[in-house]
Amino acid sequence: MRKELFKNEINILKDTFGRLLRRHAKTNLTKLINKTHPADLAVIFRYFNDEEQIQVFNLMKNDNHTLEFLINLDDTIIEKLLNIEHPERIANLIQNAPTNDQSFLLGALEPKQAKSVIDLLNKEEQEGIEEIMGYPEDSAGAMMSTDVFTIYQETTCGDALRTLQYQKDAEMVFYLYITNEDDALVGIASLRALATTHPDKLLRDIMIKRVHSVRPETDQEDVAQIVAQYNYLAVPVVDTDNQLLGIVTVDDVVDVIREEASEDFLQMAGVGKDREILLKSSWENAKIRLPWLFASWIGGVMAAYIIGVFEHMIENIIALASFIPVIIGMGGNIGTQSSTIIVRGMATGRIAIGDEFKVLSKELQVGLILGVLYGLLLGILANITFLNLDSMLGVVIGLSICSSMLIATAVGALTPILLKKLDVDPAIATGPFVTTSTDVLGVFFYFLIAEWFMDL
Amino acid sequence: MRKELFKNEINILKDTFGRLLRRHAKTNLTKLINKTHPADLAVIFRYFNDEEQIQVFNLMKNDNHTLEFLINLDDTIIEKLLNIEHPERIANLIQNAPTNDQSFLLGALEPKQAKSVIDLLNKEEQEGIEEIMGYPEDSAGAMMSTDVFTIYQETTCGDALRTLQYQKDAEMVFYLYITNEDDALVGIASLRALATTHPDKLLRDIMIKRVHSVRPETDQEDVAQIVAQYNYLAVPVVDTDNQLLGIVTVDDVVDVIREEASEDFLQMAGVGKDREILLKSSWENAKIRLPWLFASWIGGVMAAYIIGVFEHMIENIIALASFIPVIIGMGGNIGTQSSTIIVRGMATGRIAIGDEFKVLSKELQVGLILGVLYGLLLGILANITFLNLDSMLGVVIGLSICSSMLIATAVGALTPILLKKLDVDPAIATGPFVTTSTDVLGVFFYFLIAEWFMDL
Repeated sequence: MRKELFKNEINILKDTFGRLLRRHAKTNLTKLINKTHPADLAVIFRYFNDEEQIQVFNLMKNDNHTLEFLINLDDTIIEKLLNIEHPERIANLIQNAPTNDQSFLLGALEPKQAKSVIDLLNKEEQEGIEEIMGYPEDSAGAMMSTDVFTIYQETTCGDALRTLQYQKDAEMVFYLYITNEDDALVGIASLRALATTHPDKLLRDIMIKRVHSVRPETDQEDVAQIVAQYNYLAVPVVDTDNQLLGIVTVDDVVDVIREEASEDFLQMAGVGKDREILLKSSWENAKIRLPWLFASWIGGVMAAYIIGVFEHMIENIIALASFIPVIIGMGGNIGTQSSTIIVRGMATGRIAIGDEFKVLSKELQVGLILGVLYGLLLGILANITFLNLDSMLGVVIGLSICSSMLIATAVGALTPILLKKLDVDPAIATGPFVTTSTDVLGVFFYFLIAEWFMDL
Repeated sequence: MRKELFKNEINILKDTFGRLLRRHAKTNLTKLINKTHPADLAVIFRYFNDEEQIQVFNLMKNDNHTLEFLINLDDTIIEKLLNIEHPERIANLIQNAPTNDQSFLLGALEPKQAKSVIDLLNKEEQEGIEEIMGYPEDSAGAMMSTDVFTIYQETTCGDALRTLQYQKDAEMVFYLYITNEDDALVGIASLRALATTHPDKLLRDIMIKRVHSVRPETDQEDVAQIVAQYNYLAVPVVDTDNQLLGIVTVDDVVDVIREEASEDFLQMAGVGKDREILLKSSWENAKIRLPWLFASWIGGVMAAYIIGVFEHMIENIIALASFIPVIIGMGGNIGTQSSTIIVRGMATGRIAIGDEFKVLSKELQVGLILGVLYGLLLGILANITFLNLDSMLGVVIGLSICSSMLIATAVGALTPILLKKLDVDPAIATGPFVTTSTDVLGVFFYFLIAEWFMDL
């Protein structure tokens, strides 16, 4: 299988590095570093200990290979590595890098260290960095590449091709960005269209005029949505005068999509949103997870008090206690289903504004269907098992399962909808919140129903 | 905000279509269809009812716009639309489409309908489709585009550029694929490199030789991993002789990444893996979710039996019943945290083969830290609240929280690890399985601990 092969290559590389590191074989290490793809190097770097990381990094030259390696590295490792590095080396490394890479690396440094590095760069670079660092985190502005090549619409295709040949700097050129006399973006043309058109034709006659562009303050998730929906290779970022500020390229969008999905996963489970939690120590890891569990602790204490209030009923029919786990468990699980479907639907744009009511009512229907079904199933089972007890026990259990599942679908659907309305990420801690509220409400209605039917 | 703007555009379009549909304004509808981006049309199509969908589709021409629209449509809608369409129209629509689009659409049809369509295509097309449909679903072979342009390595850059101009068919050319005398892939060159090099230079001298390629049977997730890691715009798919079969382009990879994330989300929550669950009726939706809830139902019944066995203890100390929800709730939530971190870590390649033990032991450490902390907190609270009862109650509650959380991290971490070892998607129903096992085991150890300490 290719899968194993690809994973194996990384493993072999990891082992080879490990062997050379243990032998302190500097010459061979340097050779291996230069031969390894920077993205691969960034992956296996996770497995080195602190000393090994520093040892390898010190053997690396101040070139593009090292820069690309740093860009691919996890934030946690970048911090560790660069905060103790001489500012001169960092400045040297990033001085000719694209602005978005510069600001990304500087953003990972401690403010003091970042300042020392910035002070070593020339005025022009400093201004570029300041501008891009002024945009909000996770915005199109922060991730755009500013080395873009624009060309006037009255240029001929032949001239455009010739001009392009001298644009060594422009990153990943897929499209030509075409401007009018006011320097506003009016269209794009693919490199391919350019190459297959008669050289005398004007750009204005071949360009595509309907192009989705974004503002620098547009959230990266929306940029990703546009790229995914229209199969773009790059989205232009323009200011209010429609002047081109930069482009966001698809390779960065791929990273955004993966990162946003990871963050949503973690947030839903109540683990914060730090994608690098696997790199943290057990203490740090526990610290990140602690607050989210506190909510579930509070919910559990509330449930305990509620059950305490109904203690006299359990005294009469001990069997009531036995069904607590299944009643809250079924609720928790169907509630998690509901919230997951809705959180993901919102993230992928499948649930649009205005759909909320439809989605909620469908969830309630599903909750009712499954609640009745599983309620009947458990009610009958309860009555068969505890024939000697109150004959209403089955009814109570059945109704309670049904109510718990109905409540859970409602909470599971409403929570992300409300969070979204409040402009909060709908994934935040939805999971623990839904299961915990279901615990509390499920138990409460269970005993309320029991009180009503069993006359205790 | 741009975000609202982008969403608003879709809403306005939706309303305009709605209005025209109600008025049966065919001419205006046709105009609007032609003016709308096929990807946008596919999005708003979700909001039309069956009749409206058919009405709009019948107004569409048999052109590329319609083809692109179909490709962007949800599978459920494609099925509904095309299974009742004349095979002639479908054949007409797809006859000049790229092979992967053809096989994608045919794959959505009922076998009989698909056969009728295939029979109408010419021999050559039929063979192409047969080949690509022979590859496993979700493989590189199934998603590759076969209209790729290869060129011999001894060609000059100037000749290559000229040849390229006549390749109207080749989709999204970013790279030239360069072959040797045996037709094996030996390197690639970007269109940009070609344009900026002296026309007399040979391709072999400018090409990049180290390129990751995949096999047609490679899973799409691995293809996505490679594209994401190396920032590729396309990955070549080669056979065992290293001959180029096709390329997988980044736009399709973007879709794969989003789809795989959605599937993982849904699977983890125990909702199957149908991304289009939002389009299903409440009945179908309930049917999909029913079996996963059954597992949790069984677990609940088991928990009820366990509690039944320990009934005599509850009879003596009713307060024991009150703490059932918090003990299984805390376990369920920390277990979900563990499994989410690990499932996502595996999906993004952060957890490699061989890391399992390290990951498991870290989760156990975290479970212990948080278990001791929350156990202490609840134990003290229980002792203060129920001072009049058995003084060991606090100890029992504290130890039970701790054991439940420890068990949950173990189950939460082990479940995806074992699934992966068995070559099953580690996301499958991990959520419900973890919470349900925690319910059962948590309750069992709770009463065991109580029995030990309280001498009931």
